[in-house]
Amino acid sequence: MIIVLKPNSSAAVIDHVLERIRELGLKPHLSTGEHRTIIGVIGDENKLQTQPLQAIPGVEQVLPIMKPFKLASREFNKKDTVVQLGKVKIGGGSLAMIAGPCAIESLAVLDEIAGAVKKAGANILRGGAFKPRTSPYSFQGLGEDGLKYLRDIGVKHDMPVVTEVMDPRQIPLVERYADMFQIGARNMQNFDLLKEIGQTKKVVLLKRGMSATVKDLLMSAEYVLSEGNPNVVLCERGVRSFEDSTRNMLDMSAVPNVKGQSHLPIIVDPSHATGRPDLIPALAMASVAAGSDGVHIEVHSCPEKALSDGPQALLPPKYAEVMAQIRKLAEILGRTF
Amino acid sequence: MIIVLKPNSSAAVIDHVLERIRELGLKPHLSTGEHRTIIGVIGDENKLQTQPLQAIPGVEQVLPIMKPFKLASREFNKKDTVVQLGKVKIGGGSLAMIAGPCAIESLAVLDEIAGAVKKAGANILRGGAFKPRTSPYSFQGLGEDGLKYLRDIGVKHDMPVVTEVMDPRQIPLVERYADMFQIGARNMQNFDLLKEIGQTKKVVLLKRGMSATVKDLLMSAEYVLSEGNPNVVLCERGVRSFEDSTRNMLDMSAVPNVKGQSHLPIIVDPSHATGRPDLIPALAMASVAAGSDGVHIEVHSCPEKALSDGPQALLPPKYAEVMAQIRKLAEILGRTF
Amino acid sequence: MIIVLKPNSSAAVIDHVLERIRELGLKPHLSTGEHRTIIGVIGDENKLQTQPLQAIPGVEQVLPIMKPFKLASREFNKKDTVVQLGKVKIGGGSLAMIAGPCAIESLAVLDEIAGAVKKAGANILRGGAFKPRTSPYSFQGLGEDGLKYLRDIGVKHDMPVVTEVMDPRQIPLVERYADMFQIGARNMQNFDLLKEIGQTKKVVLLKRGMSATVKDLLMSAEYVLSEGNPNVVLCERGVRSFEDSTRNMLDMSAVPNVKGQSHLPIIVDPSHATGRPDLIPALAMASVAAGSDGVHIEVHSCPEKALSDGPQALLPPKYAEVMAQIRKLAEILGRTF
Amino acid sequence: MIIVLKPNSSAAVIDHVLERIRELGLKPHLSTGEHRTIIGVIGDENKLQTQPLQAIPGVEQVLPIMKPFKLASREFNKKDTVVQLGKVKIGGGSLAMIAGPCAIESLAVLDEIAGAVKKAGANILRGGAFKPRTSPYSFQGLGEDGLKYLRDIGVKHDMPVVTEVMDPRQIPLVERYADMFQIGARNMQNFDLLKEIGQTKKVVLLKRGMSATVKDLLMSAEYVLSEGNPNVVLCERGVRSFEDSTRNMLDMSAVPNVKGQSHLPIIVDPSHATGRPDLIPALAMASVAAGSDGVHIEVHSCPEKALSDGPQALLPPKYAEVMAQIRKLAEILGRTF
Repeated sequence: MIIVLKPNSSAAVIDHVLERIRELGLKPHLSTGEHRTIIGVIGDENKLQTQPLQAIPGVEQVLPIMKPFKLASREFNKKDTVVQLGKVKIGGGSLAMIAGPCAIESLAVLDEIAGAVKKAGANILRGGAFKPRTSPYSFQGLGEDGLKYLRDIGVKHDMPVVTEVMDPRQIPLVERYADMFQIGARNMQNFDLLKEIGQTKKVVLLKRGMSATVKDLLMSAEYVLSEGNPNVVLCERGVRSFEDSTRNMLDMSAVPNVKGQSHLPIIVDPSHATGRPDLIPALAMASVAAGSDGVHIEVHSCPEKALSDGPQALLPPKYAEVMAQIRKLAEILGRTF
Repeated sequence: MIIVLKPNSSAAVIDHVLERIRELGLKPHLSTGEHRTIIGVIGDENKLQTQPLQAIPGVEQVLPIMKPFKLASREFNKKDTVVQLGKVKIGGGSLAMIAGPCAIESLAVLDEIAGAVKKAGANILRGGAFKPRTSPYSFQGLGEDGLKYLRDIGVKHDMPVVTEVMDPRQIPLVERYADMFQIGARNMQNFDLLKEIGQTKKVVLLKRGMSATVKDLLMSAEYVLSEGNPNVVLCERGVRSFEDSTRNMLDMSAVPNVKGQSHLPIIVDPSHATGRPDLIPALAMASVAAGSDGVHIEVHSCPEKALSDGPQALLPPKYAEVMAQIRKLAEILGRTF
Repeated sequence: MIIVLKPNSSAAVIDHVLERIRELGLKPHLSTGEHRTIIGVIGDENKLQTQPLQAIPGVEQVLPIMKPFKLASREFNKKDTVVQLGKVKIGGGSLAMIAGPCAIESLAVLDEIAGAVKKAGANILRGGAFKPRTSPYSFQGLGEDGLKYLRDIGVKHDMPVVTEVMDPRQIPLVERYADMFQIGARNMQNFDLLKEIGQTKKVVLLKRGMSATVKDLLMSAEYVLSEGNPNVVLCERGVRSFEDSTRNMLDMSAVPNVKGQSHLPIIVDPSHATGRPDLIPALAMASVAAGSDGVHIEVHSCPEKALSDGPQALLPPKYAEVMAQIRKLAEILGRTF
Repeated sequence: MIIVLKPNSSAAVIDHVLERIRELGLKPHLSTGEHRTIIGVIGDENKLQTQPLQAIPGVEQVLPIMKPFKLASREFNKKDTVVQLGKVKIGGGSLAMIAGPCAIESLAVLDEIAGAVKKAGANILRGGAFKPRTSPYSFQGLGEDGLKYLRDIGVKHDMPVVTEVMDPRQIPLVERYADMFQIGARNMQNFDLLKEIGQTKKVVLLKRGMSATVKDLLMSAEYVLSEGNPNVVLCERGVRSFEDSTRNMLDMSAVPNVKGQSHLPIIVDPSHATGRPDLIPALAMASVAAGSDGVHIEVHSCPEKALSDGPQALLPPKYAEVMAQIRKLAEILGRTF
């Protein structure tokens, strides 16, 4: 950590800062420049990271040198983490192809969709039983019934299933039925939820918050990892921006950006990122080309009657087309699903 | 609601849309233009709002005419809502002057700060017992001990107290000690939390999420209101932006924007909006001039030793100066605190 | 265009709006709903688009139905435009692989870089002679000398050349030396520049502004097209966002988004979008997979001595690696360069 | 400047960096930490600011300590700059109250508006003769005729006049008629325009770009100042954001933020920031309370017939009301206009 003092800081100010650093068991390293005095701090920077040094009178800037996450960092684990979900591998060249409806609506509709996406090559089935909806008057999900349908259809089609958990109290219930927890964008910084998911061993799909930086996302992963659960899969799903023709802005650079800083797998969800079926095929291809460890796509056999987010779902035949293209792409990249 | 069809839509497509509208008990109103066919829908638009009409083949755009919130709307209640918090009124010309440390650290420090802000004119005391922190390695709050300190110091200085609740399971505990719940920015769309707070009658301070539009904020208020709790105070606290010299960007226009659309009181928090004590005084003044129903400011007697967000806290003498200025301003505007 | 009136609008208000519409030679179509009166307007919507109908008392919302651009629209030209630049085709399956240094520094350095990128497969050479720099104290470009070097090296390596024009007065000079004008992000809404470039017949590379929506970009293209120059190539190069680990945020969805709405070719510039060489290879691949008509990459043989934007340049061997990958990808997609 | 090396950098890497620093006539100061080697650089940081040190292999981060602007900085001039515009003073407690129509349409309309705003207390008249319009099909301004009307009406009502200049070639013409140049948001980084305006001595109103940070704005001011023109007035007019109910997001914190870093006056334009007349009065008040040196408001006597931006204009009686409120506010703040 580097502490930059204001111009013309008095000796008393400098001494006060040095003293505070030594109080924390660290070694200050003074460097007096032409315009500014700078103090380098040697020792465990983590001790400093939670100290409000910026608030000391006379301090102009505090510049951290180290990343604030550890277990999620590439330094901690040089090799790519491969998460195992039943027979499906995620990471290290194996792609998670997650597909299904936004919300679970009925056994029959889910069965139809699952059969179609499985045939097209999907290896994980998604479906929401608890739905975070902007409006209290919108469909809120089928709850436990939905979870049962999801598990039964997953078993029938031999696909592990993923579903969102919105509240720590839902963890035991969801854990019973699902193979993978999803933490949605709106809950990326629901820290109690992160901690308690961290106390399970189940695989987690952690979606990036709508206003979260890549660093924020990795800090949220750190919450789960630091509680003992290493099975974290990240998901880029678009962030808020001024562009009003897409629902969010898909930050494709997050894929190589995360891969450089972290060993965790990361997949992309072009459905929520754009909200527009016409853009999903191109972005699904781009995600795999960018190095993502999978793609998450919403599919519905009758979007106009879907109870949630119908307008952004792909029809099964369109999904099959996209998957055929991705298969060719994966081949030249040496990846499989 | 207005449905715009794609150019050259066939009669079959038009009929299908008309039929779907009639199925919902609504009346379609066809209008054939030079370039497009447009269908106006007459009847209860709420029935349509949750239908995925956009997903019907042939539909180009769906344009809602009505606002998606009801109980929070100005149409629902023409008069400004005045929320009562003990002897303090919020709204209708009465300002909530909320102040205190970011986190509750000890009885002594809280007492010192409370005494100072009370003297300066604050009428509500704040302090966090459960802290949402980006890093799992940061101080997470004192929990119930913190709540006890807060209540005791509030009683001692005769100020109602507000503190954050992060998890629905904390509601009964926090309800016991606090006069006002705070729902933080990160939980603005934690819908389970909103619903259960809505089932209490306690006053809620609902902070705007970092990527929430004003409409999103009002939709979250609608969650609380629709469960039966009318005591909602909104809070603008800055949103994410590209400007990197302030922590967030304070959206001052949210104040008159909310007041035009809703009857609920709205206050401003320049501390979290900027993270910079040098900017807080000017923005506190601006908030009151913009018509806000109060100001929320973090104050700490020793920011450099604060356990959370020290660098953004004002020192008590600075807070007293700001309050003296605000008092003069409030007077010419006909407001009181 | 649809005009939504405020609730309970009086007959006088309605009549006044109807009259204004008829004054413009258009036909109003009244529709009285339960909550709102709505007026559809039949006729040439363009006449209305520039009228301040929103300002008429009693009008709540004005909802345009038609897109504001015409010549740039897919409706105007169903087939993809293919722009010809010497022997190079851009669009319709032919990729523009633009590479070179940010700024032209000397004949020798440019020659070295040009030789390397040509060998790797680049088909257009870039280099800046007039540089828009945030600081007046930064290197501002070599001007005409730079243009000469660029032309000479382009001829030597048989590559058409592209360079930025910042001011309408530079057009005749740049036209003499370059094969393709570049309009930089900061000038995307320099309307005089757009108009005068539109009066030439030379190919234009029009970069998206840092806060421009896709619609804004297409409106700027419309300026060039409406003056008679049909040779416009669009370029996505990232927009401003809150993410602070990349210089801008690459909006990959702009590629299929533009392709759906417009017949113009669009390429991607991952160099300016990220400012980070470690992210460029993945994003270059993703761009082609997303359907872009080319990739623009800055390459420098000695980034640490570059006079502009050195830190974001790829080294020639790295560029060659990326191009080898892209070649394999282009093949399976049926594209060539 | 501080250079942070990658972990485990070899002696050769370190030596290479040290050598590059010495080449520039600067003194490196090595500091070997537990995790990282850090090099402080002593001497004129400006020499380094334009060097691509980040591109040197082995360098992880380059952290500037000094601000990149000089003449615009508070360090350069501790006292607030007061710009003189005829009899009107801007800065140092004197407020610029700029008002007028978006575009100049006719002598009669301008006269009517000017008379009304003058009476309400405006001290500078605005009006556009060259209009930057998103669409090539929109009204582009009256050009020189407009400038003549503006000057004549300004003389008649004894108000200095301000108007936008979009192209360096318009400078001599606009200089002849106007008392103050306006550089619009879209041209904030039109560096040729900035430089040539800097070569005149006329007062400039420099508006913040839609995606410009406060630092970018001050760097653009530096362009004008460094050419010899000290008469710069900055203007906050909102930036692009995801909030879709206002045209832009007014960054009120820019006012105290600029005042802390710079001696230049800054005014606020709530008209362009919001595009909504219902929000302008509250934000005009807030701007003055935040410490701005003036307010820029568009006023039109018949917004529904305005040729540009009618829907955002205030009617003269509303403007008079706002000004009466601002007068009371200015009084308690010790400011005058």
